[in-house]
Amino acid sequence: MSEQQTHEQGSSGHQAPGPESREQQPSGPDPLEEARARIAELEDNWRRIAAELDNFRKRCAKDLVRARQQERAKTAAGWLPVLDNLERALEHASSDPEHIIEGVRAVQQQALSVLANLGFPRRDDTGKAFDPAVHEAVGTIADKELVPGTVAQVVRPGYGTDDEILRPAAVVVATRSD
Amino acid sequence: MSEQQTHEQGSSGHQAPGPESREQQPSGPDPLEEARARIAELEDNWRRIAAELDNFRKRCAKDLVRARQQERAKTAAGWLPVLDNLERALEHASSDPEHIIEGVRAVQQQALSVLANLGFPRRDDTGKAFDPAVHEAVGTIADKELVPGTVAQVVRPGYGTDDEILRPAAVVVATRSD
Repeated sequence: MSEQQTHEQGSSGHQAPGPESREQQPSGPDPLEEARARIAELEDNWRRIAAELDNFRKRCAKDLVRARQQERAKTAAGWLPVLDNLERALEHASSDPEHIIEGVRAVQQQALSVLANLGFPRRDDTGKAFDPAVHEAVGTIADKELVPGTVAQVVRPGYGTDDEILRPAAVVVATRSD
Repeated sequence: MSEQQTHEQGSSGHQAPGPESREQQPSGPDPLEEARARIAELEDNWRRIAAELDNFRKRCAKDLVRARQQERAKTAAGWLPVLDNLERALEHASSDPEHIIEGVRAVQQQALSVLANLGFPRRDDTGKAFDPAVHEAVGTIADKELVPGTVAQVVRPGYGTDDEILRPAAVVVATRSD
């Protein structure tokens, strides 16, 4: 801003001399001129950051859609080898019917490891204390051999960790037997 | 601007009278005072929008992580019934070995419909023109019955749509037979 004090030209942006005739003092600094330049600068900054925020909102929305698509494809792709092997087992079934059980059992193990790799291992809940966060009670059993309030039997296995449960286990809960 | 012309108070923020003695005109409006208020306002706005942009960036990053987690869980959960049925088929296998093929075939169909529902139907590429975007050539065959440049045989099926291919089909391509 002090640069403008050294020369007199460039006054085309100046206001025409008004009744206050402030712009007519060429010798001193011009705080008002400086302030107006600062205002123009700030208003420009404001427009730019507002546009940036707007673009960022749109970009974020697009990124979310794309992230979901990518994750869906990635997760689905992990199951293709399982399906391939299942079909291979079926192809050989007619020529070697006894062999199919072995093949299907291998496919089942493969499916379990796909789930575990996705962060959802099969849970082993038998004997654990019943916890409604990870267990779904589908029945009770009174048995002196079992500790009341524990999982007596898993009817349908659960998947996932305590932090991220994919499906709670369906369980039969041991109750007091009097 | 014209509002400030009507009253004379609010001069506490004024500069001490300098050599130019501009602030000493009590009768007129005070454009410098107004400009300074505007600068303070713009600077405040700037700080707020900058903070908003910063928060939004952080929130967007978190949303992306959560969206991926959700999509992964949702996609994986779709496969649990397939696994359940596969295991059911295996359970009955020892008592009814002949029945397992039927059960596994049903599981295979279920797996195909899970994939289709995720947006990745099995492709039927036999006879289609070879397209490197959706086909992976694993061999060629010279056969007068076939149109050169078309898919003679699908070795491993492809999944997905032309827009979103999950896995290209591995195919044998028909070539000119001279």
